[in-house]
Amino acid sequence: MRIIDIIRKKRDGQALTAEEINFFVGTYTSGGISDPQAAAWLMAVVLRGLNQFELAALTGAMLKSGDIMNLSSLPGKKVDKHSTGGVGDKTSLVVAAVAAAGGLVVPMICSRGWDYTGGTLDKLKSIPGFDVNLTLSGFRASLEACGCAMIDSPREIAPAEKKLSALSGGTGAFDTPWLICASIMSRKLAAGVDTLVLDVKFGSGALMKQPEDAEFLARLLVETAAIMGKKAVALLTNMNQPLGRAVGNALEVSECIDVLRGGGPADVRTLSLELCGWMFFLGECVASVDKGRELAAQLISDGRALQKFRALLRQQHGDDLVLDDRNRLPHAKFRRDLLSTASGCVAKIDGEQIGRACAMLGGGRLGPEDIVDPAVGLVLHKKTGDVVTNQEPLVTLHYNTAQQLDEACALVQEAFHLTNGARYMPQPLVTKVIECDTKQLAAEMANWQTQ
Amino acid sequence: MRIIDIIRKKRDGQALTAEEINFFVGTYTSGGISDPQAAAWLMAVVLRGLNQFELAALTGAMLKSGDIMNLSSLPGKKVDKHSTGGVGDKTSLVVAAVAAAGGLVVPMICSRGWDYTGGTLDKLKSIPGFDVNLTLSGFRASLEACGCAMIDSPREIAPAEKKLSALSGGTGAFDTPWLICASIMSRKLAAGVDTLVLDVKFGSGALMKQPEDAEFLARLLVETAAIMGKKAVALLTNMNQPLGRAVGNALEVSECIDVLRGGGPADVRTLSLELCGWMFFLGECVASVDKGRELAAQLISDGRALQKFRALLRQQHGDDLVLDDRNRLPHAKFRRDLLSTASGCVAKIDGEQIGRACAMLGGGRLGPEDIVDPAVGLVLHKKTGDVVTNQEPLVTLHYNTAQQLDEACALVQEAFHLTNGARYMPQPLVTKVIECDTKQLAAEMANWQTQ
Repeated sequence: MRIIDIIRKKRDGQALTAEEINFFVGTYTSGGISDPQAAAWLMAVVLRGLNQFELAALTGAMLKSGDIMNLSSLPGKKVDKHSTGGVGDKTSLVVAAVAAAGGLVVPMICSRGWDYTGGTLDKLKSIPGFDVNLTLSGFRASLEACGCAMIDSPREIAPAEKKLSALSGGTGAFDTPWLICASIMSRKLAAGVDTLVLDVKFGSGALMKQPEDAEFLARLLVETAAIMGKKAVALLTNMNQPLGRAVGNALEVSECIDVLRGGGPADVRTLSLELCGWMFFLGECVASVDKGRELAAQLISDGRALQKFRALLRQQHGDDLVLDDRNRLPHAKFRRDLLSTASGCVAKIDGEQIGRACAMLGGGRLGPEDIVDPAVGLVLHKKTGDVVTNQEPLVTLHYNTAQQLDEACALVQEAFHLTNGARYMPQPLVTKVIECDTKQLAAEMANWQTQ
Repeated sequence: MRIIDIIRKKRDGQALTAEEINFFVGTYTSGGISDPQAAAWLMAVVLRGLNQFELAALTGAMLKSGDIMNLSSLPGKKVDKHSTGGVGDKTSLVVAAVAAAGGLVVPMICSRGWDYTGGTLDKLKSIPGFDVNLTLSGFRASLEACGCAMIDSPREIAPAEKKLSALSGGTGAFDTPWLICASIMSRKLAAGVDTLVLDVKFGSGALMKQPEDAEFLARLLVETAAIMGKKAVALLTNMNQPLGRAVGNALEVSECIDVLRGGGPADVRTLSLELCGWMFFLGECVASVDKGRELAAQLISDGRALQKFRALLRQQHGDDLVLDDRNRLPHAKFRRDLLSTASGCVAKIDGEQIGRACAMLGGGRLGPEDIVDPAVGLVLHKKTGDVVTNQEPLVTLHYNTAQQLDEACALVQEAFHLTNGARYMPQPLVTKVIECDTKQLAAEMANWQTQ
């Protein structure tokens, strides 16, 4: 088997066999295929695509390049949630605590922020002392101790995924559904989950702007999970404005604490309950998603979710007193209120512009080597549908340096679109639930295998 | 300007500006863009294509990466011929001598063989002493002394083309019309030609099997030449069997000497005259292609072409006595006649199989580092349309080692297809002449520039 033939085959639009994909991933990971050859292959994949079985083979090859955890000795279903990321999306912290409080085991391998969207790892790292770099045995110890753990991907997990993602990031091949799917699923499945709830986001604050692109990825994800023998469901969620009011790492942690205390913005709470409802349902704790949602609400209102989050913080060496005293979280030296220059109703808040403004203040990562300031960010006082009067504060910016402050303010100002006429009709937060049609998939698979 | 944006733009199917293409080529050549990034960009070009103006910009950027010869001090039009290569294609040696004998200046930068097709450089190197590695000043001196020179591309010529071709060869991006066009044209134009005759081959013995693919490349070539201010014409030629009877480097040189002496196989002679006819016509030596063909035939019959070839050999330190004594050319230790196993009429000779058989004997280059044995090869006794009786010799194999001899014989046997019924109708050698519609191109260009 020669790499040049495998590149040409994909370049010419033919489907690869599982053997060819295994050869590519294995040989590349062990250094037998050069970076330029792998980059050419990745670009051919971007433009020719993969069928569902090639994609499952790629995911499996990445998965099997490293350790696969076996968590069967732990009581309870192993259920994880993954979001494709959006501006202000912070539900992972709430969801992990609620799900673990309800008896699920949540082995969550998290990601860093990328471009204008935030990342769960960056939010966790804003909690003083919190250690995201656990070893595999530390990860397991944390799961045993408190039913959940939130960590950066250890080097034993899917090394092929790490090497290919690093290469594809620099060569314009990453932000493409097949590679995103293989990357997510190989890491998630390596953590030993039984089932997975996916939050696939679309809209101005997400990486995918169009609902149909998000749906395409969602279908790839649930079908790949099914081929690999795991249950999964994907919720398509609307990110046409930032989720919640806080954007910026420590500010978002604070908002999560509000939600775990029974308060917080309605959209963050609603989406968290929805995701937990599905996790409890797929994890067979309850008979329906409705019952799952009720259980989640109960776990928040009776304080067990917050208690679980405190246990998680302690387990991973984070300062759990932040739950009682927000001043222990990093906070920026300066604040500036941005006032509305007109009256009206907020018709739209461009999430990407808000995310970019946060990154400009130092709260995001525009290049892979950028250092994130955990304290800075924005708090939105108005959201879509709210009525605004002229000179009323729209947003408070939290900053440590005035460098690029004016640009950030201009971008935020631009992100707000007011109408002076009719009130805005709110859009649903979850627009679609994508499940795998396993019967159809089995038929396709049988057909494919006999070819 | 960032390379990642340029990769994404091409990946997403958008046309690049000349500035972006110049940035890519210039920065890559100077080491500011990594090989994986360049490989990803090349694969995006393969799958998205380039429009005619992007292609001209790429060609221009490669061309300007090195020296561009100015041959205006030499009397006579500077005219070159380039063939896309095929099994047994040896016309360059004949054409250079005839065209220079007729008063044209022929600054020919030649290529090595690639895969199952031969290369002019390998044929020249089979002549004892012949030096293809002239410096630019040696190249000019040879042109001044005898009106032609045949050399390997010196390092001063289009270094960007060398770096990109080496990268694309290993990453499955080379054998694609846009990169082949930019590669050919940048090298040819750097040699200071006024006009170019292109022999674009299709069929079993060529790299492009389908006439429509060859025609697509031919149009790219003549249009790129036109945008860059040079006259060019492309002949589409049929390579559905090897050209001539000899396949293998020294054997092909010997056949060229036959043609220069007024003999040789009819197809080699016919194609050489046709190409020279166009060179003389475009080089304004004659009023028509017909007159050009007549002039070429005259130069062969009166011995001036052979005399010119002798001068070229002497100028480049080759042993010119090979012209009088073929035994001075390398020759193989052993011969084997391959007999026909049936009677009939030769309907087809698969050129690729003949080329691969020659490479198996050591006469071709299957990998970039392979060393070519100049002496080995095949001589075909039967060509398409010939009548064969059972046990009559089809081919003589010339070999130095019996390693892979049986495989080579089997491949040659397989390459011959006999019919036992009706006689075969010969196909024309030149199927189409492609010239640039400069009016239409100018209109497209004006339209493109105002966009």
